[in-house]
Amino acid sequence: MLPLLALTMGDPAGVGPELCLRALADPLQTGGIPVVFGDAAVLHACAATTGLPAPQLVIPAASWPQYNLQQPHVVDFNAIRPDEFSPGTINAATGRAAFTYVDHAITAALTHHVAAVTTAPLNKEALHAAGIHFPGHTEIFASRTSAPRSCMLQYSEEISCSFVTVHVGYHEVPALLTTPRILDVIELTHLALLRIRNRTPKLIVCGLNPHAGEHGLFGNMEEERIITPAIQAAIARGIDVSGPFPPDTAFLPARRRSTDAVICMYHDQGHIPLKALAFDSAVNTTLGLPIIRTSVDHGTALDIAWQGLANPGSLFHALRLAASLTHP
Amino acid sequence: MLPLLALTMGDPAGVGPELCLRALADPLQTGGIPVVFGDAAVLHACAATTGLPAPQLVIPAASWPQYNLQQPHVVDFNAIRPDEFSPGTINAATGRAAFTYVDHAITAALTHHVAAVTTAPLNKEALHAAGIHFPGHTEIFASRTSAPRSCMLQYSEEISCSFVTVHVGYHEVPALLTTPRILDVIELTHLALLRIRNRTPKLIVCGLNPHAGEHGLFGNMEEERIITPAIQAAIARGIDVSGPFPPDTAFLPARRRSTDAVICMYHDQGHIPLKALAFDSAVNTTLGLPIIRTSVDHGTALDIAWQGLANPGSLFHALRLAASLTHP
Repeated sequence: MLPLLALTMGDPAGVGPELCLRALADPLQTGGIPVVFGDAAVLHACAATTGLPAPQLVIPAASWPQYNLQQPHVVDFNAIRPDEFSPGTINAATGRAAFTYVDHAITAALTHHVAAVTTAPLNKEALHAAGIHFPGHTEIFASRTSAPRSCMLQYSEEISCSFVTVHVGYHEVPALLTTPRILDVIELTHLALLRIRNRTPKLIVCGLNPHAGEHGLFGNMEEERIITPAIQAAIARGIDVSGPFPPDTAFLPARRRSTDAVICMYHDQGHIPLKALAFDSAVNTTLGLPIIRTSVDHGTALDIAWQGLANPGSLFHALRLAASLTHP
Repeated sequence: MLPLLALTMGDPAGVGPELCLRALADPLQTGGIPVVFGDAAVLHACAATTGLPAPQLVIPAASWPQYNLQQPHVVDFNAIRPDEFSPGTINAATGRAAFTYVDHAITAALTHHVAAVTTAPLNKEALHAAGIHFPGHTEIFASRTSAPRSCMLQYSEEISCSFVTVHVGYHEVPALLTTPRILDVIELTHLALLRIRNRTPKLIVCGLNPHAGEHGLFGNMEEERIITPAIQAAIARGIDVSGPFPPDTAFLPARRRSTDAVICMYHDQGHIPLKALAFDSAVNTTLGLPIIRTSVDHGTALDIAWQGLANPGSLFHALRLAASLTHP
């Protein structure tokens, strides 16, 4: 029995609709039964524009939980009309619609109508224009599920990173680093990789400063004051973790091969090597939630939206990881 | 006629001595005639420990400029005895000796006794212990040559990065970003790549914040206020440069292939992808100096020093780039 995977359509003006069409047309690539939470009219318009297959099975959002779905479907929220936006151009209406799909997919997972949620990209500017002040999916899921602690994990076979901070300005990072927060991220990462690998994973932690501060030469001793105590507390709990390492040595080829995941202090510390090394194959997962949630690791890609050019590799990886995480 | 290349021995306790032995033993790999600025007794001790070939031709530092060297030599500064330190353990004496070699190599280049300087790694902690308060080679060369503007370029065939800031703490970076400084780094990078490529190079500039600030959502609008005006000024001077790009998209495979160099705002923004993608092949060059200077892109590697294990790949790349930059 394959798991039902809620797939949110993402921002209608981005590459989300065409990625959903590809998932509906090729469900064997998903590891489950994809159920797109989106807008049928938008998907039909995108199919006509791109030449991708149009969706076959559509049910209205109000009635869908009554059905016992055995095939890929679109759950139609009728949240935006195709004439309310231009592909490649975001606005408040596209942001509001994207939020509607996510919001209902979370409810469906919390009420066990779907086994997991996989999200297509939304656009933060469109969300903000709609008056929705979440910086991204991770924070929406954390808020809606009241998770006491959560973090982003970017997973790929080549390299995996979890994050102490994510969508904040460069200058805000140092004040957000605390020993309890770093310990939470180490523990959540350990638990997730333990499940994925089915053995004790080997974790490493990056420093904040160049050369991990080089014993106080650079920075405010964040490594000694904040990061090292978290690593020591995690080791005391039986976790296989070491560091803090100079950030630029954490991703050396030899170290990558001997490491299951890297705990990063800020967004670009992990996203730069992830995109350089594993573009199109990394999956974004939120750890610490009561539901399973994965996502593509790219954005709305407005410059190529609705041209049928978007590579569905990351989406298929995300759907398959979600499906595998539903296994007991 | 091959150029004379001053090769500084670096910190005696690190991997510098064994790398120098390899360069002396294999001069065809250097593109020139390597002249090691170091200590003959240390090199002999390292040769005995590692089994590498001992140096053949040694001349005292006081008299060497009288000779017209046609073969690889050691210029012996007698700056430290082998019994004053343990391999793998730095101290004030090793820091002071490492500085002596660099200091005299710079003089030799400024007085045209050598065509270029290539540096083996020194250790900042050892330098500081010796009361020498430079954070690294780049700053020593800039100070000694009174360069009005200079910057670090890390060059490799796979990826090249230049840096607006380098050896400062994470939190210090935003205050150090100014439009004139970024414009200087763009110009210096353009001039260097123009010489290396023999055509107009294509440059890109990273933002500071995640997603390059996403139009003000993250950070203090550093991209709009500080970085974009520098890019516009550079374009007005005829330089092919674009950005600011989200830092995690600057190093995507497709963008790497179409870009000659990436201008980075801080150390790890460029060093993380450099080491992940081009470890052992990147060369560190200081741009804007009146002399040619290249360096390995790794540190003293104290954990493997004096074991004959250090890979000389980056050193040979550095010597060859120095030699090629001496050509008119």
